[in-house]
Amino acid sequence: MSMLQTTHRLEVETRGRGLYMFTDPVCRWVARSGIRTGLLTLLIQHTSASLVIQENADPDVRGDLQRFFARLVPEGDEIYHHTLEGPDDMPAHVRSTLTQTQLSIPVMDGRPALGTWQGLYVFEHRHAPQRRRVAMHLIGEA
Amino acid sequence: MSMLQTTHRLEVETRGRGLYMFTDPVCRWVARSGIRTGLLTLLIQHTSASLVIQENADPDVRGDLQRFFARLVPEGDEIYHHTLEGPDDMPAHVRSTLTQTQLSIPVMDGRPALGTWQGLYVFEHRHAPQRRRVAMHLIGEA
Amino acid sequence: MSMLQTTHRLEVETRGRGLYMFTDPVCRWVARSGIRTGLLTLLIQHTSASLVIQENADPDVRGDLQRFFARLVPEGDEIYHHTLEGPDDMPAHVRSTLTQTQLSIPVMDGRPALGTWQGLYVFEHRHAPQRRRVAMHLIGEA
Repeated sequence: MSMLQTTHRLEVETRGRGLYMFTDPVCRWVARSGIRTGLLTLLIQHTSASLVIQENADPDVRGDLQRFFARLVPEGDEIYHHTLEGPDDMPAHVRSTLTQTQLSIPVMDGRPALGTWQGLYVFEHRHAPQRRRVAMHLIGEA
Repeated sequence: MSMLQTTHRLEVETRGRGLYMFTDPVCRWVARSGIRTGLLTLLIQHTSASLVIQENADPDVRGDLQRFFARLVPEGDEIYHHTLEGPDDMPAHVRSTLTQTQLSIPVMDGRPALGTWQGLYVFEHRHAPQRRRVAMHLIGEA
Repeated sequence: MSMLQTTHRLEVETRGRGLYMFTDPVCRWVARSGIRTGLLTLLIQHTSASLVIQENADPDVRGDLQRFFARLVPEGDEIYHHTLEGPDDMPAHVRSTLTQTQLSIPVMDGRPALGTWQGLYVFEHRHAPQRRRVAMHLIGEA
């Protein structure tokens, strides 16, 4: 069997701060590739949103995460000099630095080897609606 | 020389919050694979524990890290709605979001290319003993 | 077309805390490899500096990030036991745990698939000048 790779760009629409699950479109793309064993890598091509693997069950987890980060990285902080793009922009850069810009996930049995309670999320850090681009790479064998 | 890949699941037992080194079993698995140059990826299949690369020498570093995270992400925080799974559960989700769920490490000369002072750790965020599963993927050449 | 891989070690010199862009030497190495589609992985071989993808335009973003982390992880914190290597050493370990030790980035059209405003940085957490080693791995096809 020979090693294959494929790439794709996915778009995730966000409507304000919070976590947006996109496990399903990612799994569908992996399934369509025909690769059964390999490595999947996702990179969000923005510096004011992140990628996070978190609990996929109780939506309160997402709300609590959002509240925690809003308090840890407040708007209107006097230390910020970068304020021209709005009061939520510099906090968004900090929040993205405190979380992840990219994720790599082993693929087993034709799907990302996530745990039972794990989902893939875009963590949006800005208030206004955004179209977030995620670059994806998959390498492996059928 | 042709490209090879292999996968494995490792279990790490934890006994309460803190960092548990598992560099050795990971290096042994890489050595057994026969792959000398390549890329190793580890994913912890849980949302209340993390993977961290940290200092492998002074154990005080691990104690200080644990104290820092316990203070930054306190139990009994009034912002939490997700409380049914215990007072340490939502802090565990926050702590795992602030750290890493997965690590990818170049493999050179048959072992993960860690620096002299770097060790691989499971960072446990819950109080009760747990069995943590780590999915591993390795691709490369002999 | 067959799958290729290559590795390299890069050095980045830092002169005190802050973000040091090194997008260009990384892109040059990828270009020289001849690999047009693939996966790039970077690992910083230290536990008191990190790798970060952040905004490449307004330098105030880097200043604000530095100020945020200096306040979140203060020196002289009474919880620290690990103090022999200087007052900035344990904060450096915490800061590196709160950010990233490694980054994996899809390669498309012969270069890392970063967004328009994304740059690659070494985030230095110590005051004294350092030479930071970054291990790099690239796999893909010409």
